[in-house]
Amino acid sequence: MSARAGIVVTGTEVLTGRVVDRNGPWLAEELRERGIDIAHIAVVGDRPEDIAGALRFFRDEGMDLVVTSGGLGPTADDLTAQVVGDFQGRPLALDEPLERRIWAILEPLLTRWPDLDPEALRASNAKQAMVPAGATVLEPVGTAPGLVVPPPDGTDGPTVVVLPGPPRELQPMWLTAVATAAFEAAAAGAVEYRQRMLRLFGIPESEIAATLRLADERHGIDGLEITTCLRRGEVEVVTRYEPAEQARYDAFVSVVRERHADTLFSDDGTSVDEQVANALRERGWTIATAESCTGGLLAARLTERPGSSEYVLGGIVAYGNSVKAGIAGVDRDVIVEHGAVSAPVAEALADAARARLGADVGVGITGIAGPGGGTEEKPVGLVWLSAAGPEGARLTRRVVIPGGRADVRDRSTTIAMHLVRRLLRGEAGPSGS
Amino acid sequence: MSARAGIVVTGTEVLTGRVVDRNGPWLAEELRERGIDIAHIAVVGDRPEDIAGALRFFRDEGMDLVVTSGGLGPTADDLTAQVVGDFQGRPLALDEPLERRIWAILEPLLTRWPDLDPEALRASNAKQAMVPAGATVLEPVGTAPGLVVPPPDGTDGPTVVVLPGPPRELQPMWLTAVATAAFEAAAAGAVEYRQRMLRLFGIPESEIAATLRLADERHGIDGLEITTCLRRGEVEVVTRYEPAEQARYDAFVSVVRERHADTLFSDDGTSVDEQVANALRERGWTIATAESCTGGLLAARLTERPGSSEYVLGGIVAYGNSVKAGIAGVDRDVIVEHGAVSAPVAEALADAARARLGADVGVGITGIAGPGGGTEEKPVGLVWLSAAGPEGARLTRRVVIPGGRADVRDRSTTIAMHLVRRLLRGEAGPSGS
Repeated sequence: MSARAGIVVTGTEVLTGRVVDRNGPWLAEELRERGIDIAHIAVVGDRPEDIAGALRFFRDEGMDLVVTSGGLGPTADDLTAQVVGDFQGRPLALDEPLERRIWAILEPLLTRWPDLDPEALRASNAKQAMVPAGATVLEPVGTAPGLVVPPPDGTDGPTVVVLPGPPRELQPMWLTAVATAAFEAAAAGAVEYRQRMLRLFGIPESEIAATLRLADERHGIDGLEITTCLRRGEVEVVTRYEPAEQARYDAFVSVVRERHADTLFSDDGTSVDEQVANALRERGWTIATAESCTGGLLAARLTERPGSSEYVLGGIVAYGNSVKAGIAGVDRDVIVEHGAVSAPVAEALADAARARLGADVGVGITGIAGPGGGTEEKPVGLVWLSAAGPEGARLTRRVVIPGGRADVRDRSTTIAMHLVRRLLRGEAGPSGS
Repeated sequence: MSARAGIVVTGTEVLTGRVVDRNGPWLAEELRERGIDIAHIAVVGDRPEDIAGALRFFRDEGMDLVVTSGGLGPTADDLTAQVVGDFQGRPLALDEPLERRIWAILEPLLTRWPDLDPEALRASNAKQAMVPAGATVLEPVGTAPGLVVPPPDGTDGPTVVVLPGPPRELQPMWLTAVATAAFEAAAAGAVEYRQRMLRLFGIPESEIAATLRLADERHGIDGLEITTCLRRGEVEVVTRYEPAEQARYDAFVSVVRERHADTLFSDDGTSVDEQVANALRERGWTIATAESCTGGLLAARLTERPGSSEYVLGGIVAYGNSVKAGIAGVDRDVIVEHGAVSAPVAEALADAARARLGADVGVGITGIAGPGGGTEEKPVGLVWLSAAGPEGARLTRRVVIPGGRADVRDRSTTIAMHLVRRLLRGEAGPSGS
């Protein structure tokens, strides 16, 4: 029986979606990698009774560990430490050395914002130095310390790890938390798992369902915890299993490979972004973009990776037609004859990216992101994409992407990455298309 | 006593963060706007016992409604309808007319993907036509129908609304769900609330804590449910209250306005993006960008809004120095003398955006996004931004942004939006800075 954990993400701003929660999934993955089973993430508002409700639920479900994120800030609606102390029957007391250490972090703020009221700052932050009896303090990464709070003495309820909300504080503090004796005691019984991912592009999810049934008939898939999902236009198949099931997993992969040879593009966890980056590095080639409907998203995606300046030169965002005909140098007659959303314009943009920025590979994108601007002949979601390389190599593609404006723009960048990947694999000859 | 609801977001891919959940927060906001109190979102994996655990929790907490998202797909790991049917004591049976309606949606796929196995497709999707006894069917938007499943006859447990995972299916189907008699019965007792937002830029969250204390001393803030959060570099203060508390809210806003006149930029819910868009429209001005470290993110942010082609011309992504000196036309000597990350280069980029794309407003951004490339003098996170307008109007700013590469890039776009906002408000004269 594996150790089990629940995650409580606090914050009305997360509950109502003004802030996207990055901590819950991050912690879930961390726990899974440590062989700790994770069944739920509870996202709760800032009301103490709701936080306490989530803690009770996890205790009643028999969890060994609960990890909370958020609610450690200076404002009065940040109450997690108090709620967890009450829940574990451990009264809070001011930890004066900790208060001084926090003050040493805060004091420089008075220089940065000279209008701050020092007394208010001190009051706000003494609050952050209140520690439940018997808890282990995790030193602040920002200004808020974390806590590892054991269950009430003599009981076997969950140990609660209390972490701050900002991911760049939570993530390093988590590494401190897992090294504490209190955490290790609670996490005893973790099982080793392996997790592997397959990625496919260009098939519907229902095809994978049929493949799973076939694999089950042939070799059985018991012992493999397989989940499939659609993500940014790709199908991801993630499998978790104990090391003893490796041969069964390998048999499963061989069935997928056999049925989906042309759409399975990754069996080692690499993303299309990584594959494009690696292929550009290997060839020593540079890339540049000329985007209309995606408005810079493809360039932003290409430069998301550290070190991308090795192979990304930049791009042109040719949103208005004046820019397409101006700095991007697309022939105005071509725009008039074929319309801005057309194969010739996508190809001219790709060529412009190569020529004007001096890149080996150019990518052109032009489409109708909506919600307005669609016609019967050229509906919202219609996008033309072209990737051009040296010696006339070129791949051009037309797609109609369902969904809203954001979907059309985001999905277009995925399709562009796959076009570039194919170009870099030599799937377009000098006369290819 | 208001009606209360819980949300269950299913999917191992969401639990582990491979997919960001957009449904939980969206549904929470929808429920709140209908006066239904929402305490928790539970994110659970695809295992039936974990989904059932979340349903039990919400029943035990006395919820009137539970809304689930996801787990209605064709694959065997999609089990929500079955689990909810079992939970409500309502056995599933095949709804044959529904099966035929789904088939009418699926059949065209066979033309689009000729390799699909029709039998597999039929088997996968008969599953989607299984309906718990006494449930109301919500017609498919994609291929999966939704359900409104009442509690077991004679009990007062929660009504469960079962919705598909893809947001563009869930959102329209939700509007169908709230109009059903079963939903209306469960949601009786909803209270009317108002919700308002203030946005501030350029102060730490702890300052708001002091303001809240002051407002409480002066006028009292009981009856106002106030939450504050940091989001993309701005402080958001959201208040929910019953209409009878309007005067108290107005008094609270007047305290914020008095203490934070220079940083409060929105009291009507508008974002800086909306304000910039509106100001550009009002002036009849166009905008263009020239970005280095943000790699196109600012152009992408400006073009995120429908109709932005009215005022966004486009931009240059001058990621490599060859592009800065080439198509962006920054004087190579300036780059050599001051370095690529410097005020003169940011200003030259802003000027290039104006001149080369023919825009009224140009924005230049150059910085060190990291993780590599920092020095003692120019650390990771250092960014220079410049916004230039007609008649020599210009605002230039240096910042050092904490956090990782993604933080530095994203935060830079927020700072740029605020620079443009100030420029458009005339806060930079011909000689301004």
